[in-house]
Amino acid sequence: MSGEDSLIARYFRPLASNPGAFGLGDDAALLKSDGDDLVVTTDAIIENVHFLADDPPETVARKALRVNLSDLAAKGANPAGFVLTLALRDADDSWLAPFARALGEDAAQFGCPLLGGDTVSTPGPLMISVTAFGRTPVGRMIHRQGAKPGDRVVVTGTIGDAFLGLDILRTKSTAVETAAAARLIDRYRVPQPRTGLASLLRDHAHAAMDVSDGLAGDLAKLCAASGVSARVEASLVPLSAAARSLITEGRVGIESLLAGGDDYEILCAIPEGKLSSFIEAAGAAGVAATAIGIIERGTSPPRFVDGSGSELVMRRLSYSHF
Amino acid sequence: MSGEDSLIARYFRPLASNPGAFGLGDDAALLKSDGDDLVVTTDAIIENVHFLADDPPETVARKALRVNLSDLAAKGANPAGFVLTLALRDADDSWLAPFARALGEDAAQFGCPLLGGDTVSTPGPLMISVTAFGRTPVGRMIHRQGAKPGDRVVVTGTIGDAFLGLDILRTKSTAVETAAAARLIDRYRVPQPRTGLASLLRDHAHAAMDVSDGLAGDLAKLCAASGVSARVEASLVPLSAAARSLITEGRVGIESLLAGGDDYEILCAIPEGKLSSFIEAAGAAGVAATAIGIIERGTSPPRFVDGSGSELVMRRLSYSHF
Repeated sequence: MSGEDSLIARYFRPLASNPGAFGLGDDAALLKSDGDDLVVTTDAIIENVHFLADDPPETVARKALRVNLSDLAAKGANPAGFVLTLALRDADDSWLAPFARALGEDAAQFGCPLLGGDTVSTPGPLMISVTAFGRTPVGRMIHRQGAKPGDRVVVTGTIGDAFLGLDILRTKSTAVETAAAARLIDRYRVPQPRTGLASLLRDHAHAAMDVSDGLAGDLAKLCAASGVSARVEASLVPLSAAARSLITEGRVGIESLLAGGDDYEILCAIPEGKLSSFIEAAGAAGVAATAIGIIERGTSPPRFVDGSGSELVMRRLSYSHF
Repeated sequence: MSGEDSLIARYFRPLASNPGAFGLGDDAALLKSDGDDLVVTTDAIIENVHFLADDPPETVARKALRVNLSDLAAKGANPAGFVLTLALRDADDSWLAPFARALGEDAAQFGCPLLGGDTVSTPGPLMISVTAFGRTPVGRMIHRQGAKPGDRVVVTGTIGDAFLGLDILRTKSTAVETAAAARLIDRYRVPQPRTGLASLLRDHAHAAMDVSDGLAGDLAKLCAASGVSARVEASLVPLSAAARSLITEGRVGIESLLAGGDDYEILCAIPEGKLSSFIEAAGAAGVAATAIGIIERGTSPPRFVDGSGSELVMRRLSYSHF
């Protein structure tokens, strides 16, 4: 058995419990649709771009899968499985063992089994590319387009924590007390995909996407796809206690949090009549959902206004690779 | 529009003609099964590992898609679409434009439309990861397992050309005359996936896989998965005129060709009674198929024997990344 096959057998075969994975012993996997629509998403994470070289292998594994689960949830799709491409500099057991163990734990927790993959050597940075599959009843995938004037703009969880966590890791800042800093760093390293909201979104949302590149920019994308504009009350955007303290202390501006990436929350347009039902059901599923604004007619970019009604000036809306 | 979105719109949206791709304007694609089984395969290619830094962008694009199409063909699956992860150092138009154009040509030629993707920046080598989808009638995917004693071992095309082409590129050897060298290099850079054989394989083969890491090692994998052994007559292994000349001149040994990677031919086990029908139908589809040996009982690794019946000694069976 080659080193590559042995690595796959040792670390990844235990994760391939789904019969369609054939124990990773074939050249392809079998994905049964069972009459559903299959939703496909792909997201890669790269060392020193999406995660840091000294991030623990466990959190790298979880982030690689979860950024994709976040997309599936936003599209109203329930996880069905994933394939993994792993580009490694070497086969380092002390990194691979915890990576595979955490990946397996997440695959089990989210009901998203490993179906197949490719392991290759690279002279460059680590890269983990995941293509994930989800199911929706036929025709029920939620799109970026579909938001209508009068819909409420709703976001889950809190915004900006991951941005702050990354900032702490990068600057080694000690301005935030230890426990709060650890929570912010954890938000950066380990997204919480809102998998439990998939069916709720199908039943309530006109449009949805996950917030991965920054709330402001991602809302602009949702509006552009829907041919609408939006007005958001910045004071309504849900913030963690740590983020709120940093704003109060003048250490960070709300604009930075609205444009910061890696939130992996759900942004959606909910018709007024379904708003309270959505917020209540999301709460029952353990996820806070907050109405932060309204979809408006027009094609101008969404506006973020402060308590006095003045428009915030955003230097950048979101993260872009190029 | 961000640089990343602009890049996608400019180069890749034209390739996303399938309605399930939503013009690359959503966060996920929709894959209709239409009642078929969906076969999923994923293969990545990395600069200076699977292709060379000065390979033309057109051939890099074709190789990235075709190594996956080769897997689908070997599994008896007809192409249905693919998603692309592109890790780039920068957004270089002079590289991206021909890359995307060639990718689009191949997607059209092989009926495998772009459904979605992710474009990320990397400080390291270029990496192109493709996850491709194919369809088979329910339960008709061809596996590595299933080969039975008495089946004939059959391989398509010619073996070892890509290995020789890579060797010419690496050593800048001038031992091969120019036209032949160009053909060998082309075999390395642009695989010919045997897409036209998918339905034939479903109707004839007990087991199949594509030869990507070396015929000897890949046959060993097929035999191990099937719980059988095999005997191959090395003299029957189909070689190009250029490869045969190099062997005759003593410049390369047959063992190197049998263990060299990047052939992207089909290796399959065909029951004796269907052999002539398979070879004839493959020929009618424009693909030479050659019987090179026989599947035998046992679990020892397959043997390659020369004209005198002596077993060839293989130092390595195939390429492994680790």
